[in-house]
Amino acid sequence: AMEAILAVSGKLPLNVKVLVEGEEEIGSPNLGPFLQENLDELKTDVIAISDGSQFAPDIPAITYGLRGLSYLEVGVQGPRFDLHSGSFGGLVANPVQVLSEMLAQLKNEDGTVAIPNFYDDVLELDPRERQEMAALPVDEVALKKYLGIDELVGEPDRSIVERKTARPTLDVNGIWGGFAGEGAKTIIPARAGAKVSMRLVPDQRAAQTNELFKDFVNSLAPPGVKIQISELHGSDPVLVERDQPAIQAAARAIEFGFGKYPLFIREGGSIPIVGLFQKELGCKSILLMGWGSPDDGAHSPNERFSLEDFHRGILSAAALFYALEESFEA
Amino acid sequence: AMEAILAVSGKLPLNVKVLVEGEEEIGSPNLGPFLQENLDELKTDVIAISDGSQFAPDIPAITYGLRGLSYLEVGVQGPRFDLHSGSFGGLVANPVQVLSEMLAQLKNEDGTVAIPNFYDDVLELDPRERQEMAALPVDEVALKKYLGIDELVGEPDRSIVERKTARPTLDVNGIWGGFAGEGAKTIIPARAGAKVSMRLVPDQRAAQTNELFKDFVNSLAPPGVKIQISELHGSDPVLVERDQPAIQAAARAIEFGFGKYPLFIREGGSIPIVGLFQKELGCKSILLMGWGSPDDGAHSPNERFSLEDFHRGILSAAALFYALEESFEA
Repeated sequence: AMEAILAVSGKLPLNVKVLVEGEEEIGSPNLGPFLQENLDELKTDVIAISDGSQFAPDIPAITYGLRGLSYLEVGVQGPRFDLHSGSFGGLVANPVQVLSEMLAQLKNEDGTVAIPNFYDDVLELDPRERQEMAALPVDEVALKKYLGIDELVGEPDRSIVERKTARPTLDVNGIWGGFAGEGAKTIIPARAGAKVSMRLVPDQRAAQTNELFKDFVNSLAPPGVKIQISELHGSDPVLVERDQPAIQAAARAIEFGFGKYPLFIREGGSIPIVGLFQKELGCKSILLMGWGSPDDGAHSPNERFSLEDFHRGILSAAALFYALEESFEA
Repeated sequence: AMEAILAVSGKLPLNVKVLVEGEEEIGSPNLGPFLQENLDELKTDVIAISDGSQFAPDIPAITYGLRGLSYLEVGVQGPRFDLHSGSFGGLVANPVQVLSEMLAQLKNEDGTVAIPNFYDDVLELDPRERQEMAALPVDEVALKKYLGIDELVGEPDRSIVERKTARPTLDVNGIWGGFAGEGAKTIIPARAGAKVSMRLVPDQRAAQTNELFKDFVNSLAPPGVKIQISELHGSDPVLVERDQPAIQAAARAIEFGFGKYPLFIREGGSIPIVGLFQKELGCKSILLMGWGSPDDGAHSPNERFSLEDFHRGILSAAALFYALEESFEA
């Protein structure tokens, strides 16, 4: 978009700073120090990020909230080597069994997280926002068909959109232990492990939920095993003030590119750099625009991005320069 | 041993049939049909098997009981591909979480198996046998050091030997699901699975415990996932009558080879062919003698068998021919 504008008019309507960072998926460990070292050069009025998506195919959106993330790994060490389950079954704590019992205790039957004090800092949504979310168009039948499942689950009395974007949750991302090959091996595994992550909402803090998780899991450890927990990464949740000129400008730009005024939504995922920008650069005007579709299969095999969305995104990005220029002049 | 006897005396004191089978670790799927097809040729008064072990290093034993085995695999299918846990966390049943919750419900806090009716057919040991087991020499401190664990677990009010040889139990032998590599991947896994096996004691039957397991696990399945359970293999537990001439002959042979009269023990493991021999050949005189030591690391990396035990075993095996000859003549 910038090159197209330069080719046509010879100059951009705004001063632009471009920051490219390639470590988002591992938690952006080097971005914080980089921001701190380059505060003056990076100072800005508005930050535009296009790592997000439309609300649904052909329903563009501006994201004003992001969930945060606490991501940890739990290791359970039992005997110092795999044992014959005939010779030792009934006598030795089984690390996979222990891990399963601990994971089972992390969630309540209604889908809420069972870690003590986990909800203490959760800001309840105001009724207007909850109503907005409940009114967003969600085709539950199509969604279930797309996912290949019979039923959605989760907290009762919360709309689908609220559950997946504005409520905290916990998921096991992976588990391993013992014999996973074809056939049968009669062992008590020496060790087992799991990756567990929590999605956080305002005003939860990753540093705090990490501690709550560790305290609780350690308290569940039974005799006969050793537990080791490590933090893999974390990011704090984000809320951007909706009623500000830069957001209105972004909405007009998206309307230009997509032919439709965008919805205002929260995203269930995390973009750690947004929290870093807020914290390190002190910038509150963060535009979270996304051009892809939520069924593009992010983080899945065969992730995709349609050419139509690519082109509508380019148009919106070009329009954003002029819309922001207008908003600054106003 | 047979070759040595033939070299010295020109003939064996008994008629001997040798049966070599190489599928024990996969449940001997072809042995049953083979026995049925060769019943006449295989007819025998006594069966000698040396797949067992001493009770402890330098404490030889004759095994008169074996636990059986039910071995199953549980698969949990959630969404049809891995999902981004930010986009769908809070909305979709997590197969690893579901599997963990099901596995947690298979055991009670006291180490007993929680599957309904699991203990219905368990023969309680008579007080004399329980006392014998409790009196067997077990160095708990050395055992814990060997295993590298701080505490043994299991059913309260049962001796260590009883727990690991004469009580039924359940172990998860392996588990898998989602991302198990280094670092963090924020997914809701599409599927998870576990291998679970139960050690059985008289008069439990593998066919029956398989059904109890499947009924219970299927009853635990929550909405939003599909459960698939397959049977990998099974074998029934075995008890051999201790007070019979062939067993006494085996005891004398072991005394000759090891210089010590053997203990009479049950083994926690399973030897499926023993049940098959009992069932198909109708032979009740089954001699379960073992030359190795329980700390040889069966089924573990670096499994071993000492040359001293190898030689003592050869002596015992040779002596068995003459001891059995005596017992038949008596």
